[in-house]
Amino acid sequence: MNVNKIALEKHKQWQGKIEVKARIGVKDKKDLMIAYTPGVAAPCLAIAKNPQKSFELTRRWNTVAVITDGTAVLGLGDIGPEAGMPVMEGKCALMNIFGGLDAVPICLKTKDTDEIVKTIKLISGSFGGINLEDIGAPRCFDVENRLKKELDIPVFHDDQHGTAIVTAAALLNSLKLAKKKIEDVKIVINGPGAAGIAICKFMFKLGAKHITMVGRHGILVSGDKTLSPAKQEIAKLCKTKKGGTLSDALTGADVLIGVSAPNCITMQQIKLMAKKPIVFVCANPIPEIAPQKAKKAGAFVVGTGSSEFPNQINNVLVFPGMFRGAFDAKAKSINDEMMIAAANAIAKSVPKEKLSTEFVLPLAFDKSAHLAVAKAVKLAAQKTKNIRK
Amino acid sequence: MNVNKIALEKHKQWQGKIEVKARIGVKDKKDLMIAYTPGVAAPCLAIAKNPQKSFELTRRWNTVAVITDGTAVLGLGDIGPEAGMPVMEGKCALMNIFGGLDAVPICLKTKDTDEIVKTIKLISGSFGGINLEDIGAPRCFDVENRLKKELDIPVFHDDQHGTAIVTAAALLNSLKLAKKKIEDVKIVINGPGAAGIAICKFMFKLGAKHITMVGRHGILVSGDKTLSPAKQEIAKLCKTKKGGTLSDALTGADVLIGVSAPNCITMQQIKLMAKKPIVFVCANPIPEIAPQKAKKAGAFVVGTGSSEFPNQINNVLVFPGMFRGAFDAKAKSINDEMMIAAANAIAKSVPKEKLSTEFVLPLAFDKSAHLAVAKAVKLAAQKTKNIRK
Repeated sequence: MNVNKIALEKHKQWQGKIEVKARIGVKDKKDLMIAYTPGVAAPCLAIAKNPQKSFELTRRWNTVAVITDGTAVLGLGDIGPEAGMPVMEGKCALMNIFGGLDAVPICLKTKDTDEIVKTIKLISGSFGGINLEDIGAPRCFDVENRLKKELDIPVFHDDQHGTAIVTAAALLNSLKLAKKKIEDVKIVINGPGAAGIAICKFMFKLGAKHITMVGRHGILVSGDKTLSPAKQEIAKLCKTKKGGTLSDALTGADVLIGVSAPNCITMQQIKLMAKKPIVFVCANPIPEIAPQKAKKAGAFVVGTGSSEFPNQINNVLVFPGMFRGAFDAKAKSINDEMMIAAANAIAKSVPKEKLSTEFVLPLAFDKSAHLAVAKAVKLAAQKTKNIRK
Repeated sequence: MNVNKIALEKHKQWQGKIEVKARIGVKDKKDLMIAYTPGVAAPCLAIAKNPQKSFELTRRWNTVAVITDGTAVLGLGDIGPEAGMPVMEGKCALMNIFGGLDAVPICLKTKDTDEIVKTIKLISGSFGGINLEDIGAPRCFDVENRLKKELDIPVFHDDQHGTAIVTAAALLNSLKLAKKKIEDVKIVINGPGAAGIAICKFMFKLGAKHITMVGRHGILVSGDKTLSPAKQEIAKLCKTKKGGTLSDALTGADVLIGVSAPNCITMQQIKLMAKKPIVFVCANPIPEIAPQKAKKAGAFVVGTGSSEFPNQINNVLVFPGMFRGAFDAKAKSINDEMMIAAANAIAKSVPKEKLSTEFVLPLAFDKSAHLAVAKAVKLAAQKTKNIRK
């Protein structure tokens, strides 16, 4: 089937993938007096007295804003805010279907970090959480860090942390199959963008000890002042002392995580890796190396970003359960423990009898996986006392 | 019944008066590929090429943002953005129930005109229209004027124009009953705030020739430099040369429109008016004079803002049909002709046999009235060629 043609046709038919509906009926004068004037003054005044009541008396408790500036939509790059909308609506629909959330898509007409932060702050009182989406690097780091500091509701940059969590889940199950331990394996991450950096940091939090980041010009070396601040930071974290090419990095490596560009990795390079190599090639829609080729070159597990192959590493598995769990716990932010809990929950959602090199992750539309993520995230928020007063 | 107590109880039960739902199902890999990646790239690219396509391929065509800064919510004054939410949600629910619209409530955490305008501009690409709500005067004039100039979608400040339109509809029917013509009658508007000024300007557009605006310190006189810019402008428009008290203004007047403060008008003052005086006392929740007293003092028609009395002058009659009609016509703004059409449609929605001094407006929950407004507004937009390309 021609996916693009069908998708365009379907979007024309749908005229929107989400809708806003009244949850109440207004049939007579009494209904109107209670839902609207004059009765509505009572909940207004209760919230004026204590703004936290907005989580009880309005839909705020269940509402997440899905916000982009349209600069890094899918693999399409900077296509502008209006053009980002079909993705944001899709995300909102998935948030509702798999997380029972009310999700509102908002595309910002600006690429300025200060303006993005300010706008989100000014509208944040209407939402219970903020999901940042498809904002280009390095702007996304700054936007997220500032919002996390300045807002008292959960802020989550899906392209960073959603990707990191689902990649980690795939890795945990793959390591189980390969009978290797995360603290022992050598991990190479090719592509030091928003996703790559987030994956690297998250792997360290999960116990990884040996990670090498590789960029377009080779291995990122700690102390290299010619790198961007974000890359300098990550190279320092990796404690990488020796430079070299991607091939150098891959020699003897157990894990390759590609979040870079189509067709940039060869069969020869896969052959340089250690025994039972785990290869996640997530460039979308075309991976760094075709899965069949990677397999032929000896890859033990191959995962991609695409649903056309086995082991789709799709952050759809993360965001609905993440916000569901955070909201159910009344969490005031999304902390490391909640993210680790989500990764473990996704990994454990694959039943033992199903777990195989062709099936390391649950399917994206498996509702039980989303439920498991929500439960685990809620519990982690409670355990870490990351709860709104 | 104790409306406040019931309303607070009900709002606790409801946990939100609106919700965001997916309009599509995602049951398998194919569904996901079409609604989300990779298929969603096709509508994204179509919009990137022509942003107007966002009105066809996303929910934008039917989505209105209901935006406040929380500074003039109901009669409660500046209660802050979170506390404005129950009113905004109520408005959104009514937009959906009576206009079939998708309405998103947004409360801004700022009172700064530049910030309000900028924030709304930056999020405007996600919406088909902007309904401004409960923003205090004189800030609301500036916010509205700037947004009307700078945005290419309908912008409507309900507290000004919604109020003006429904008041005009009530007046047109009352004049019919009193057998008076709008161009002949002397109209006094007490309360030169956002609503009062908008009513005055709109009455002139409907053909009124004799309007006197009265403020806290008496009649507004043209050329009085001590007045605020908005009041100077309106006094000039009224060509008022002679000052005086409210009683002076009311002497011989045919129409009194109060949008001011509770209990500020006496029976004696009503008695000063001409024969068959029309008295709309819209201060909320307590009117300028109790309707029974006004009637006793000789008022021919009495209208109030409250549903407790006959003739509730409620802008709920305006905004759902206004945006429905504007969206159906693909209008690029809301112009005078559309507003006049709305006023006439509301007036005509009262069947001849029902029209009486106790029934000059349709009931707020009369769906046929909303439908009539939508049709009339759509037609007016088309006639004036106020259509998006």
